[in-house]
Amino acid sequence: MTNLSEIGEFGLIERFSQQFIKDLPEGITGIGDDCAIIPLNHEKALLVTTDMLIEDRHFLLNKITPHNLGQKSLMVNLSDIAAMGGDPHSAYLSIGIPAKLKVEWLDKFFLGIKELCLNTGTYFLGGDTTKSPDRLVINIGVIGTINPLKIKKRSTALPGDIICINDTVGDSGGGLKILIDEKPPDKYSSFLVQRHNCPRAHIEEGKWLAHRETVNAMIDVSDGIESDIHRIMESSAVGAEIEISKIPVSKELIKVCEKYNWNAREIGLTSGEDYCLMFTVPEEYFNDIESEYVKEFKTPIYTIGKINDNQENLTFTQNGEIIEFTEHGFDHFKSKNEKV
Amino acid sequence: MTNLSEIGEFGLIERFSQQFIKDLPEGITGIGDDCAIIPLNHEKALLVTTDMLIEDRHFLLNKITPHNLGQKSLMVNLSDIAAMGGDPHSAYLSIGIPAKLKVEWLDKFFLGIKELCLNTGTYFLGGDTTKSPDRLVINIGVIGTINPLKIKKRSTALPGDIICINDTVGDSGGGLKILIDEKPPDKYSSFLVQRHNCPRAHIEEGKWLAHRETVNAMIDVSDGIESDIHRIMESSAVGAEIEISKIPVSKELIKVCEKYNWNAREIGLTSGEDYCLMFTVPEEYFNDIESEYVKEFKTPIYTIGKINDNQENLTFTQNGEIIEFTEHGFDHFKSKNEKV
Repeated sequence: MTNLSEIGEFGLIERFSQQFIKDLPEGITGIGDDCAIIPLNHEKALLVTTDMLIEDRHFLLNKITPHNLGQKSLMVNLSDIAAMGGDPHSAYLSIGIPAKLKVEWLDKFFLGIKELCLNTGTYFLGGDTTKSPDRLVINIGVIGTINPLKIKKRSTALPGDIICINDTVGDSGGGLKILIDEKPPDKYSSFLVQRHNCPRAHIEEGKWLAHRETVNAMIDVSDGIESDIHRIMESSAVGAEIEISKIPVSKELIKVCEKYNWNAREIGLTSGEDYCLMFTVPEEYFNDIESEYVKEFKTPIYTIGKINDNQENLTFTQNGEIIEFTEHGFDHFKSKNEKV
Repeated sequence: MTNLSEIGEFGLIERFSQQFIKDLPEGITGIGDDCAIIPLNHEKALLVTTDMLIEDRHFLLNKITPHNLGQKSLMVNLSDIAAMGGDPHSAYLSIGIPAKLKVEWLDKFFLGIKELCLNTGTYFLGGDTTKSPDRLVINIGVIGTINPLKIKKRSTALPGDIICINDTVGDSGGGLKILIDEKPPDKYSSFLVQRHNCPRAHIEEGKWLAHRETVNAMIDVSDGIESDIHRIMESSAVGAEIEISKIPVSKELIKVCEKYNWNAREIGLTSGEDYCLMFTVPEEYFNDIESEYVKEFKTPIYTIGKINDNQENLTFTQNGEIIEFTEHGFDHFKSKNEKV
């Protein structure tokens, strides 16, 4: 008998996905990207995504407010829609509720979901309510819509593309370390915890990027850059080189890392739940994309590396010199230091 | 602070549903029926449903095979699609996997899902895989399609309608009692356990009934007749009278009930997970529907009572005499003998 830890989460998905991918009708895309794609007609396709959050695995009940947890549970799905450039349409919640949770807690949880629905034009159209033996379990599914010609996928990166992200990374991971290690609150650590508990889906940015023909591939940074660039590399059959010194980190993360002797760029590279967008653009189009993006959103784009033809091989450089990097992104079934 | 048991599952849904129901665009239906409805055009609407199953709440790992559990997890959703008369299109699985589960167990679980997908023309288009601290958690969402003019709802029953079901009830509930009480296996009890572990969604029957204009309301029997007729009564603002002696039960359930001194019709009325269809038909059209249905499916329709205008009031009769009935259907947040 085989333990899951031997094959890992992605190994498991690979193990069973082949039997479900074959025989799909033309145009329907199942397992393998941020969302499934169902074409409706020449102008419209559905995007479908779903995410499960289990107490003590994805959140600690005493470390997040019900309002934030409601928003985050929905947000992680909206981020998947954003990653392909879509518009969220509707959300479906399944919730397994343990007896310890009070109705007033749930009121705040639902208020968080409601507010984010209103802010993003997402209809909340139902789901399933049930009792859970002990832990709170949340599953939200989101359906989005998109013009099928505008969909951005993981599988369309090309050698020579510049790898870009549209926000700093590591704040969420730093916030999680603060929570787990029970570090005392200060201005900077509280900022990181807030970024961990209340991330933002880059829906407008995703839609804008989806309308740029020169953007080749896109994904949201949910498992961490180091893990998510592998998704692009595997889907696109390419390699990548990432320059560690270019990983953008916030001044708050740097302050906290100085205080606790943590490595900010390591956290930025390997920790998950940032939910910014990572996309690839051919070098010759990068300047145009960047200047238009900055004009539109008044925030920068960061370049962190380059796609190459060194198939499925990820290289790290520090100021141009190749360096070894053994810390890995968040694979749910592998221990942190195990090679994927 | 309010405990959930004070308001119950349906109380909770009522508490938060109002804020999500208002402001929906014309034609979109959210909370309140077996599926959400999203109209696409004059000929097609989407149906969306989702169901969560948690170990030790909805199933016991040592009492069901992985193959059956995979099928049942999908089946409960297909039954919701069937309840509105739809055609299943695609399924989305979120699974929280505890370390105790082996890869070989998961292979059989996925094989169960795959087979049911193939048998029902449902595409499996992905989902979410994560680790669970201890219990297996399964959530499946299903998208279906339907002609919007053919959709059957809970809310369209009319006084005078005959209440029909298309299968015997209570086998699943009897099977669950066998499992919980750890009764020794015999021919009849094994049949009930199999009906509990491997129920069938009545997709073809649902589609057929949806195409009959004279069928007024429809629902699937998931929580038990006594509970599910309340859903129709509340949605349609009608009352109902159910004749206990007409509750159809299988000869296997009768045999097992004789052996253990259980009440077969009480089990048939109050236990859930039968997943047959309950629908209402005006008296004058019943004979036509019945004879056509029997011709088509070679199985009977059972009449168990009548819709009346005694708003939201459920009466039970035994051979025509009104009787009290205090046993209630399966409301996840209420203890079994508590009044809803």
